[in-house]
Amino acid sequence: MSFSEKFHLRIPGPTPIPPRIQQAMAQPMIGHRSGDASRLLRECSEGLKAIFGTKQQPLILSNSGTGALEAAVVNTVRPGEEAIVVVTGAFGDRFAKIVERYGLTCHRLDIPWGQACDPETLGSFIKEHSRAKAVFMTYCETSTGVLNPIDQLAKVVREHSDALVIVDAVSCLGAVASQMDDWGIDVMVTGSQKAMMLPPGLAFVAVSQRAWSAVEKNEAPRFYLDLLAYRNNLEKETTPYTPAVSLLFGLKEALHMLQEEGLENVIKRHERLKQMTRAGVRALGLELMTSEQDASPTVTSIHGGKDQWSSEDLRKALRELQIVVAGGQQHLKGKIFRIGHMGYCDALDIFTTLSGLEIALQKIGVPAPLGAGVKAAQEVYMNHV
Amino acid sequence: MSFSEKFHLRIPGPTPIPPRIQQAMAQPMIGHRSGDASRLLRECSEGLKAIFGTKQQPLILSNSGTGALEAAVVNTVRPGEEAIVVVTGAFGDRFAKIVERYGLTCHRLDIPWGQACDPETLGSFIKEHSRAKAVFMTYCETSTGVLNPIDQLAKVVREHSDALVIVDAVSCLGAVASQMDDWGIDVMVTGSQKAMMLPPGLAFVAVSQRAWSAVEKNEAPRFYLDLLAYRNNLEKETTPYTPAVSLLFGLKEALHMLQEEGLENVIKRHERLKQMTRAGVRALGLELMTSEQDASPTVTSIHGGKDQWSSEDLRKALRELQIVVAGGQQHLKGKIFRIGHMGYCDALDIFTTLSGLEIALQKIGVPAPLGAGVKAAQEVYMNHV
Repeated sequence: MSFSEKFHLRIPGPTPIPPRIQQAMAQPMIGHRSGDASRLLRECSEGLKAIFGTKQQPLILSNSGTGALEAAVVNTVRPGEEAIVVVTGAFGDRFAKIVERYGLTCHRLDIPWGQACDPETLGSFIKEHSRAKAVFMTYCETSTGVLNPIDQLAKVVREHSDALVIVDAVSCLGAVASQMDDWGIDVMVTGSQKAMMLPPGLAFVAVSQRAWSAVEKNEAPRFYLDLLAYRNNLEKETTPYTPAVSLLFGLKEALHMLQEEGLENVIKRHERLKQMTRAGVRALGLELMTSEQDASPTVTSIHGGKDQWSSEDLRKALRELQIVVAGGQQHLKGKIFRIGHMGYCDALDIFTTLSGLEIALQKIGVPAPLGAGVKAAQEVYMNHV
Repeated sequence: MSFSEKFHLRIPGPTPIPPRIQQAMAQPMIGHRSGDASRLLRECSEGLKAIFGTKQQPLILSNSGTGALEAAVVNTVRPGEEAIVVVTGAFGDRFAKIVERYGLTCHRLDIPWGQACDPETLGSFIKEHSRAKAVFMTYCETSTGVLNPIDQLAKVVREHSDALVIVDAVSCLGAVASQMDDWGIDVMVTGSQKAMMLPPGLAFVAVSQRAWSAVEKNEAPRFYLDLLAYRNNLEKETTPYTPAVSLLFGLKEALHMLQEEGLENVIKRHERLKQMTRAGVRALGLELMTSEQDASPTVTSIHGGKDQWSSEDLRKALRELQIVVAGGQQHLKGKIFRIGHMGYCDALDIFTTLSGLEIALQKIGVPAPLGAGVKAAQEVYMNHV
């Protein structure tokens, strides 16, 4: 007997798949142009409205989140135009790379990694770059565990300009509040493999009426990522190209699960998981990368021991205990580790992770008190319920 | 108890998923940057070499086949250049649409739907359009059930020009012979949901050294579909963006199944399924859309009864028997129906389909002799084994 499959995936996506969703995805294949497929697509798109907080009809693309980020670029802006990209980490950087690759003048607003962008900073930056046609930003920056105050950032953009507000919400939508319409967000993008509890392979895009006007006028070449094709086909309850049907089976079940728990409860659960994780980590004497105010409910970044111990050694020790956490990206490689706590994750998963973290720290020679992290998390838990 | 899930999917993709593959896809999710994911990716890419008939390292994209068709365009040719597209049906037409959308001068070689392109015709066409940088063609044209003689077509392109030979093999690769390197094909593209027995959501692309030179020089903007990013990451045993991990679990199992049966036997099985289907259909007095020579081993197109009976009524009658076949596309809508017989399909599935077809024909008032189609298919079967 092997326990090799019995491990705890605590990275910020892909995230564990609930058994109900696994079963749903194992349904017999259906034709993508059948009535069954149309009903499935309609139900999924309807269900996504609440996740985005929109009355618009969310589109379903069969590709990873990056494909949807590119769709958000190529459909809205054109080569030669100017755009602002708020870069708070690796995924803001990716947005900037896409914008640059498509021949736009990219005005990067670089914020130190680990901090959120504050609205005043963005407000001044917009005034300096008033010709920008769009402002690209990241809701949860997966690489640092920062949740940008996207409602306030959107507001400041709308106050100072007519630029479209375009948001990467891949690693948080379905775990945090989103009132896309009320907040004045024009394009919002997310993926299946994070808080939505699905395997990777689907991306979801919602587009405001204001943005549709820009998309309709935009003649820049695009085909697979042409959002108009998805919208026009969705009106006929189908997709322009063969969708990832088994993932749609799973999406329908995931939306049921979120509805059963209630989105408000889902959001509260993630907030609690964040607080538990942060309390536990602090009690072990480790240094959090983000402030209380900037921390995302979906992922927590923690500094390694600088010259004392390496976050990579800690990750290895955790891996031996069958707990998988993520390392740092780009210049943070080897310097931080990240615990994902989104999607199919509950309080007990945090106790599990912290109990393993305590042992792993001791194994690499860091004198963290056994039980102290778990206890701190338990106290948060008891205060919440 | 409901039998609603007990149906027979006999469309030319998506195709039924074998239980072994369903189980493989239900494995616990893993991190896409883990060692396990690297091993999975490497094994899958290695296994795909035999399917393509190439020594090059096949790339794995997480999108539908159309995304891969677009990748085959945007990576190889540039706006303002000329290209030839051989159009034998709806998917050749799609290739042409992509080429046009990206601002190329598109020379369409339109062949009557239901016929293959013959090498002489293509040879003359190439001489007329000698500035074409690439020739795009379709191996199996799903909309008509035609298998183009792709080896001969590739040969004639190479004889007459330096144009790249780019092939859509979505609805046949894994069911028909492919010696991409020997045949001089530069880019070949396929999808997961046809002969590969997987759900839709993955696409596979192989690129010749000659084509890589063109791709490397091509500065046309592209991001998610940038084949260089996939190649460079695959060399490090990873992907540029999060892949559809559960489908990769399935791909590994699908490749095992194809290896166990032996690719030669897989190809023979499909040839037999085609002959059985055609013999059965003929015995029922129906008119095949393609000649023996042009017929694909993966899908068979059959004319409706013109003024006598409608192929859509027949499809409905079949649907009531829990057999799902496809209709016609574009101008063939309502005029033909198509039986898919690729992937997880054996002789008994053909008997099932033909027995249902006989009943359905009687139900819509077509005097097809009961048992005659099955018998004709059985005779083909007995002669084969």
